[in-house]
Amino acid sequence: MNKNKEFLYLQLADKIEKMIGAGAYTIGDKLPSVRSLHREHGISISTALQVYTHLERQGWVEAREKSGYFVQFSRQGLPQLPPVSNPVQTASKVQVSERVAMIRNTSSNKHIFSLIGASPDTSLLPTAKLNKALRQAAREESKAYIPYSDVTGYEPLRRQIAKLSLNWGGAVTPDQVIITNGAIEAATLCLRAVAKAGDTIAIESPTFFGLLQAIENLGMKVLEIPTDPVTGVSLDKLEEVFKKKKVQACLFICTYNNPLGSCIPDNSKKQLAQLLHKYHIPLIEDDVYGDLHFAPERPKTVKTYDRDDLVLYCSSFSKSLAAGLRVGWIINSRYHEKLAQLKFMSSASTGLLPQLLLVKYLEQQRMDLHLKSLRQALSIQSMQMTKGIQQSFPADTRLTRPAGGISLWVVLPPKVDTWELHRKALEHQIAFTPGALFSSQPKYNNCLRLSNATPWNDDLAWAVQTLGKLICKQLK
Amino acid sequence: MNKNKEFLYLQLADKIEKMIGAGAYTIGDKLPSVRSLHREHGISISTALQVYTHLERQGWVEAREKSGYFVQFSRQGLPQLPPVSNPVQTASKVQVSERVAMIRNTSSNKHIFSLIGASPDTSLLPTAKLNKALRQAAREESKAYIPYSDVTGYEPLRRQIAKLSLNWGGAVTPDQVIITNGAIEAATLCLRAVAKAGDTIAIESPTFFGLLQAIENLGMKVLEIPTDPVTGVSLDKLEEVFKKKKVQACLFICTYNNPLGSCIPDNSKKQLAQLLHKYHIPLIEDDVYGDLHFAPERPKTVKTYDRDDLVLYCSSFSKSLAAGLRVGWIINSRYHEKLAQLKFMSSASTGLLPQLLLVKYLEQQRMDLHLKSLRQALSIQSMQMTKGIQQSFPADTRLTRPAGGISLWVVLPPKVDTWELHRKALEHQIAFTPGALFSSQPKYNNCLRLSNATPWNDDLAWAVQTLGKLICKQLK
Repeated sequence: MNKNKEFLYLQLADKIEKMIGAGAYTIGDKLPSVRSLHREHGISISTALQVYTHLERQGWVEAREKSGYFVQFSRQGLPQLPPVSNPVQTASKVQVSERVAMIRNTSSNKHIFSLIGASPDTSLLPTAKLNKALRQAAREESKAYIPYSDVTGYEPLRRQIAKLSLNWGGAVTPDQVIITNGAIEAATLCLRAVAKAGDTIAIESPTFFGLLQAIENLGMKVLEIPTDPVTGVSLDKLEEVFKKKKVQACLFICTYNNPLGSCIPDNSKKQLAQLLHKYHIPLIEDDVYGDLHFAPERPKTVKTYDRDDLVLYCSSFSKSLAAGLRVGWIINSRYHEKLAQLKFMSSASTGLLPQLLLVKYLEQQRMDLHLKSLRQALSIQSMQMTKGIQQSFPADTRLTRPAGGISLWVVLPPKVDTWELHRKALEHQIAFTPGALFSSQPKYNNCLRLSNATPWNDDLAWAVQTLGKLICKQLK
Repeated sequence: MNKNKEFLYLQLADKIEKMIGAGAYTIGDKLPSVRSLHREHGISISTALQVYTHLERQGWVEAREKSGYFVQFSRQGLPQLPPVSNPVQTASKVQVSERVAMIRNTSSNKHIFSLIGASPDTSLLPTAKLNKALRQAAREESKAYIPYSDVTGYEPLRRQIAKLSLNWGGAVTPDQVIITNGAIEAATLCLRAVAKAGDTIAIESPTFFGLLQAIENLGMKVLEIPTDPVTGVSLDKLEEVFKKKKVQACLFICTYNNPLGSCIPDNSKKQLAQLLHKYHIPLIEDDVYGDLHFAPERPKTVKTYDRDDLVLYCSSFSKSLAAGLRVGWIINSRYHEKLAQLKFMSSASTGLLPQLLLVKYLEQQRMDLHLKSLRQALSIQSMQMTKGIQQSFPADTRLTRPAGGISLWVVLPPKVDTWELHRKALEHQIAFTPGALFSSQPKYNNCLRLSNATPWNDDLAWAVQTLGKLICKQLK
């Protein structure tokens, strides 16, 4: 009898949890009252109350006095945040590409349960509308993609990108934009425009290995700056470095850093812009995750506050529309001529076909509506992945709580070796990204990055659970 | 009366010349007999004879005993060939990008009569069929271009490229192919795979400035090898360099070099492959013009004879189908893993959309037929440009006679300064490529490159004529 009742409330709680997961209810939504659960599901008031108590305990629901129950991303009972990072404060050579190659080779296996996802799952993207735009481009611009394009890219797309900058308070003109083969090429061109081999670049710690590779690629060095998992790079430490003239430039993902998910608050971004001005040091701002904010408001960028044009803003459509299009861009005037020259030397110009498609899409489809539903899905997936980790990982696991983006950073007890864990997980067909890839120093080997790019499902749940078991095994 | 007759034969000769230009008659075709001209055009036998005598003198037509008149590219009366180049035999730094940037800026002006054309004019390309392939890709592969692609490129396209290698006697498998953002990225990745900053690369002299820039880009040096305008790089001089261990690798356009149009004969290509083997030196073979042979037979490549996998073969669809697609490729196994890693670091992977289009095109359309008509057009345009130069340039002008490709190399008397000429020509809205861009040394400033990428028309004729006048003016 008791068991049966327990079964009933768990069943209904599970149903509501799934509806939240599917986006039927989203963060902030009011849930049905206890009374309406009682009426509509033929359960007792006390069972209905049990449903919400359970969901509350799981962190899915918040009770507001005299108002009822609301969907929320409860912080109650969540793992502690990772500490501010503490990298060694000396410039060092980067040598991550060998390790990255090892991971890359394993992750291309199609039979793997991937927790790696570097861009949102295809099911979250407006494929039908992109395809409509493609067919329209084929119909209306049937010859436009044949010859070489302008080295800076297709003018109508540069115009659209200039418009998109309004979202973060930019006032950009099309002639400040250079279209690139994704954001990695963009960052590479920017690095070459402001620094040369042997120079030192300030980066966040940890930092996305793709950026570390770009720096390694160019024979530059890095200086890793302590980074807070919520508010990003430490401006005090950065100013010390600026004072001592230790770096030639900065390369930061200021909004939803990969892997930390940290976001420099708007007023600190403004302060950072002032620091750049004071010491006359350029910043390459990689903003590929900027549109993926879980809260309604889009954060600003450092570029927003950049009166000196010292910020070389980089972004792409890889995280918001389609990574396979390989279209990114740079916004900057100060280094424009140099950047255009480097682009011409590196790849002549960016292919026209994806640019034509993007122009049709941006002109005629509602990207804002797509982004709204994408953000909602990513926010829920982030919450679900967090729950999964909370349920299966050791109790002293530390975990980020990003307010946007597509990654979670897990800090495990120092004893855990995630490089070895990766090897073990592969035996179970599970892939994640080991922490050691995210630094030039021998650090973060007890950390790992998990992606919330894919809608939560039983396979993912199983993979996270299995990973938890493997970690516990290592700890014994 | 006499004048009238003269007018008649010139009128008809002009008509036939235009028909050749339009491709109605092509090289090797038999022309109507003198008797049939007489009958069908109501002219006397002697006037008909005059028509052919005139065309013969112009180099359009060849009389074969007892067979009649045939369209040919007569060498009679053509400018002398340029001498074998004689660059200084020491390694030197490359610094062409400033000069290239100056030219690039002027040539993007749309109101200019361009003799620059780096890829065949759109009117020569199968735009309708490419577009059909695009619509088909949009229909059948509507989601395939959304996610990141494999770092080495879309497998079905790698399979098609492997098949195309049969044309030059290659036996390539899809896993040896890496798809790139055009041939410039391909060459850059190859340079990085075989050499590092400070190393010296053997190149032809003159050499395409895009390759010089790629080398400059990477901080490498060049050693220019004497090059024959017909048979390409001197193998004797090359072996001397190999013996003295002066270079880390070679980068040659072995077939229809840009700008010379030189083509290393097949047996010398074989010999070159043996030299590479003997001294264990890799060759980056840029074969973007290989399909553009004017004679029926496609030349082989050095890769054809490469038993050691020391040749890193690079090509693209930019000169044969559409430069705006920005799709090139590398064929090599020895450096495959390194190349894949470098590709991943540089641009993650190549965009999928153009790759999908190309697969549909190559699977379902007759690229061989397109290439046949493209080659014919380029061959005739080369002839027409040659005639134009012959008619307007100083008598002691030297000129290449390429058997393929899209450029002509003009060597003017030493007194002429083509950098200055370029400035003057721009005042008349005419753009060409000054010779100084094609070397790391202060050479070729009396030379220029003209393109035969565009169908001959009155504007081109006027531009070449005006250029001739400006040169003569400089010489006075």
